[in-house]
Amino acid sequence: MNVTWVSRPPIKVRGRVLGDGKVPLIITPLVGKTTDAILHELAEVLAKRPDIVEWRADFYADIASAGAVIELARRMKAKLGATPLLFTIRSAREGGQQIRIAEEAVVDLHAAMCRSALADIVDYELGNAPERLQQVRNVSRETGTPLILSYHDFQSTPALNALIEKFVQAEREGADVAKVAVMPASLHDVLVLLQATLSASERLRIPLISMSMGSLGSLSRLAGWMFGSAATFAVGAGSSAPGQVAIEELRAAIEIARKAIDTRT
Amino acid sequence: MNVTWVSRPPIKVRGRVLGDGKVPLIITPLVGKTTDAILHELAEVLAKRPDIVEWRADFYADIASAGAVIELARRMKAKLGATPLLFTIRSAREGGQQIRIAEEAVVDLHAAMCRSALADIVDYELGNAPERLQQVRNVSRETGTPLILSYHDFQSTPALNALIEKFVQAEREGADVAKVAVMPASLHDVLVLLQATLSASERLRIPLISMSMGSLGSLSRLAGWMFGSAATFAVGAGSSAPGQVAIEELRAAIEIARKAIDTRT
Repeated sequence: MNVTWVSRPPIKVRGRVLGDGKVPLIITPLVGKTTDAILHELAEVLAKRPDIVEWRADFYADIASAGAVIELARRMKAKLGATPLLFTIRSAREGGQQIRIAEEAVVDLHAAMCRSALADIVDYELGNAPERLQQVRNVSRETGTPLILSYHDFQSTPALNALIEKFVQAEREGADVAKVAVMPASLHDVLVLLQATLSASERLRIPLISMSMGSLGSLSRLAGWMFGSAATFAVGAGSSAPGQVAIEELRAAIEIARKAIDTRT
Repeated sequence: MNVTWVSRPPIKVRGRVLGDGKVPLIITPLVGKTTDAILHELAEVLAKRPDIVEWRADFYADIASAGAVIELARRMKAKLGATPLLFTIRSAREGGQQIRIAEEAVVDLHAAMCRSALADIVDYELGNAPERLQQVRNVSRETGTPLILSYHDFQSTPALNALIEKFVQAEREGADVAKVAVMPASLHDVLVLLQATLSASERLRIPLISMSMGSLGSLSRLAGWMFGSAATFAVGAGSSAPGQVAIEELRAAIEIARKAIDTRT
């Protein structure tokens, strides 16, 4: 039988393909507030060998100081070795922390993280103003830093076609990776997210990442890769969104499912 | 958040509720051909503590001798202890072995297995003639033996509404449990089966069992319970249908998923 889930385009960082393309990349967020807390968290997370470490810089207390952000990123980079760093400032509008800097400063931080080659991947929200999207896309292209264009809905799950359109829109806006994270109100919504992921993965030329959040959506974190999600977020030390599973358990579940698939009986 | 998958009606055997209602019952098939092979297989399977053992009697070489069937069932029963025995003669039409006895004799075997209390549950196919269905249902009711009315399609996955109708039809025909097993041609079909299971489980008053077969459908065996399937078939010693997972791996996957759900973060 022809299994279709192994042929998705991979996520690449500086020409290097991440993962084996058969199971999802595991992305582990850092949600510390202080330099010490973040460096401590990083050490804890790295011991669990995630494929990508995401710095959720909206949690960082010194986010308003570009110098502090760059200096901390440099210290993180020294510890990360070959593990790519994903730089994310999630807006409060899409489930992130309230921060005291304007969107121009957010764009400038992305630019600085790309130009210094401290960020290996950057996340920017699809919902931002077109000129900001263009600025971040331009700097990501100039510096060869892959850009995730992301969409989050912490309240509900849009209808199937609206969800597919979010992935399509991310590709159209120049994303290297399209990300959609939504909240289910029922198990029907979880199936809608998986169906949208599968349909979008059949249409898009770029890799995508999706998840249905919360307790109800946990299946999407464990098995969304079968339907075309190239990566899944797992807890290393602290969770950044509802429903995230511990990295060890995620790996065990993926291994069992992969073995079940490979049996091909 | 209100999790809906714990409120499904349980499968009961002689007034006793099987399982805790939170995770699916594990049914392990016996597919041996000879008395010795079947008794050996039973010992191996029982060591893995399934919730129900299914004797796929269509594999049994002596199926044409009612005396041999009853005698072997008696020897099995002595080893089974409190583990319920599900008696199944799968037709060749629905993926079973070719057997040399007529449908009347199949009905008589079901009757004998119910009357002797050797079968704790019986499976009969929804596709059988109405008068045969009625005969089996009558004897199952008289003897208080739960009846699974089952539907299998080893070639394809019917459309969503046709699948839901199979569950509804089983209930209408007097099933105590409705079972639907279909073959997916794509991952879309796997989602259709899960959606049909979820919708049917919201409508039916009886428990149901469903699966999408083969490598593509393996997720339904691991996680179909979240969508309302009360049981899943797993390999103890030998597989009876494509895509069945080993009982140990199934248990590990269920445990991880259940923990992920219970986190409720």
